[in-house]
Amino acid sequence: MSSLHGIETLAIAGLGLLGGSVALAARERGLARRIVAVTRRPADDAVEAGIVDEWTEDLAAAVRTAGLVILGTPVEVMKRQLAEVLSATGPETLVTDVGSTKDTLAQAASALGTAAGRYVPAHPMAGSHLTGWRHARGDLFEDSLVYLTPAEATDPEAVERVASFWEALGARLVYTSARRHDRLVALLSHVPHMAAAGLVDWLGASGEDPHFLGQLAGPGFRDTTRVAMGSTPMWREILAQNAANTSAGLRELAARLQAIAHSIDEGGPELEALLERASAARAAFEPPPQQD
Amino acid sequence: MSSLHGIETLAIAGLGLLGGSVALAARERGLARRIVAVTRRPADDAVEAGIVDEWTEDLAAAVRTAGLVILGTPVEVMKRQLAEVLSATGPETLVTDVGSTKDTLAQAASALGTAAGRYVPAHPMAGSHLTGWRHARGDLFEDSLVYLTPAEATDPEAVERVASFWEALGARLVYTSARRHDRLVALLSHVPHMAAAGLVDWLGASGEDPHFLGQLAGPGFRDTTRVAMGSTPMWREILAQNAANTSAGLRELAARLQAIAHSIDEGGPELEALLERASAARAAFEPPPQQD
Repeated sequence: MSSLHGIETLAIAGLGLLGGSVALAARERGLARRIVAVTRRPADDAVEAGIVDEWTEDLAAAVRTAGLVILGTPVEVMKRQLAEVLSATGPETLVTDVGSTKDTLAQAASALGTAAGRYVPAHPMAGSHLTGWRHARGDLFEDSLVYLTPAEATDPEAVERVASFWEALGARLVYTSARRHDRLVALLSHVPHMAAAGLVDWLGASGEDPHFLGQLAGPGFRDTTRVAMGSTPMWREILAQNAANTSAGLRELAARLQAIAHSIDEGGPELEALLERASAARAAFEPPPQQD
Repeated sequence: MSSLHGIETLAIAGLGLLGGSVALAARERGLARRIVAVTRRPADDAVEAGIVDEWTEDLAAAVRTAGLVILGTPVEVMKRQLAEVLSATGPETLVTDVGSTKDTLAQAASALGTAAGRYVPAHPMAGSHLTGWRHARGDLFEDSLVYLTPAEATDPEAVERVASFWEALGARLVYTSARRHDRLVALLSHVPHMAAAGLVDWLGASGEDPHFLGQLAGPGFRDTTRVAMGSTPMWREILAQNAANTSAGLRELAARLQAIAHSIDEGGPELEALLERASAARAAFEPPPQQD
């Protein structure tokens, strides 16, 4: 059987926005008969809300009979849990996760030997600045991008089955290595996020009254800095796990801004070329117009 | 009469998005009996489309009997036109403009002597990456912010009458000096724009396939870089007119990004404090929720 449709038990470690949304989405699509949350914080209200069927603090007990385990905890916690899940389960139990960074996790997995062949790392590019299962949505993964970053040692059948699970939730899959994943998300998310945070922080240091600036700011400014509203604990973790790519990228960006400042002072054709290049490059990122 | 309602002739130099939208908005609100465009490019189609009543290449002839003249050309052109308009008209003709920068224009105006008392500089924070009168909208200035930057020598009654014109188009007015205006728009628009352009340009230099990156980019990235799609000629002009504020701001921002890169490598409480500070500061820029 290459599909995971009809999982007897789906175990989800961590009931955040993503873990909760996987639970809801799997339930709405009838992908699992029973969904168990593993969480240290009592989750009776999540059971009452119909997000999961049960909850427990006992990871090993919850996963023992699971067909699929989703790790939805912070990445450092995932590393410990991955080891625990793999040693508590046999070949019939597959593992995936929702971590925003993949390389340090891949290194932790490779230290676990052949059992890690059942672990298929994933990163769903979904979510918002909202956190917690109360904001969970069953359609969160529809048309979302999910990176899968299997290692060379990952079992191909496990990859196929975990891929079919994410696809059943509506995801578009992109396969890449863990290392390349971390570089790509630094380019498209972690450096842009920190550039926006830096911009807001620079503005805060301008000496202008923030309330006055707030009245003057237009939609362009709000768009440019919106991502800076992200959750601090989440970003602290992301930056800890992807520090080298992000700090190197920010230094490159800083050098580029200095070069642009120089071009502005010069006012020559270099500045015009930059404006043309950036405008055309950015336009290529617009989604194609929807067909009605 | 302190109001400009019921202008006999409204002359608009330059039929771009802003000039065209002032024409449409004034016509829809019955603020002028006759609207004349001054443009070097034949504008019969703008007359046919009902944007203006007439067009001419002859600035002096068009403004001679005008109650109000709107300068909607590039700022360098405005400087010449301002001198020409003031010498072709008498005290009954007021002048305003839509220029994105105000300080170099204020210097040009102050060199024109007492006649410049009839000139009330304005900067409507409206528009988009679209250009040209074909995208003009009669509601473009509704609830938009319009800076007025009168000089000490500006006639107070002229200020009052030009203010009433912009308010009749639906604008919220902010009064400040030309110099302070240019600093504020560097903070909230020119530096953020160039940071977004720099981010896109940095990404373009990453060696990754732009088409592949385009498929991976999420709404956060698109928001952060949207303003980089602005019109090159418009931005070339803005940067030429506000070079010192913008390049100084970009250098400060670059230094801040380098400091953030250092904090990421250190991974200490400084990084956490930055994330908290930026997230809270950015949240303060969100418009309050609409009351139904």
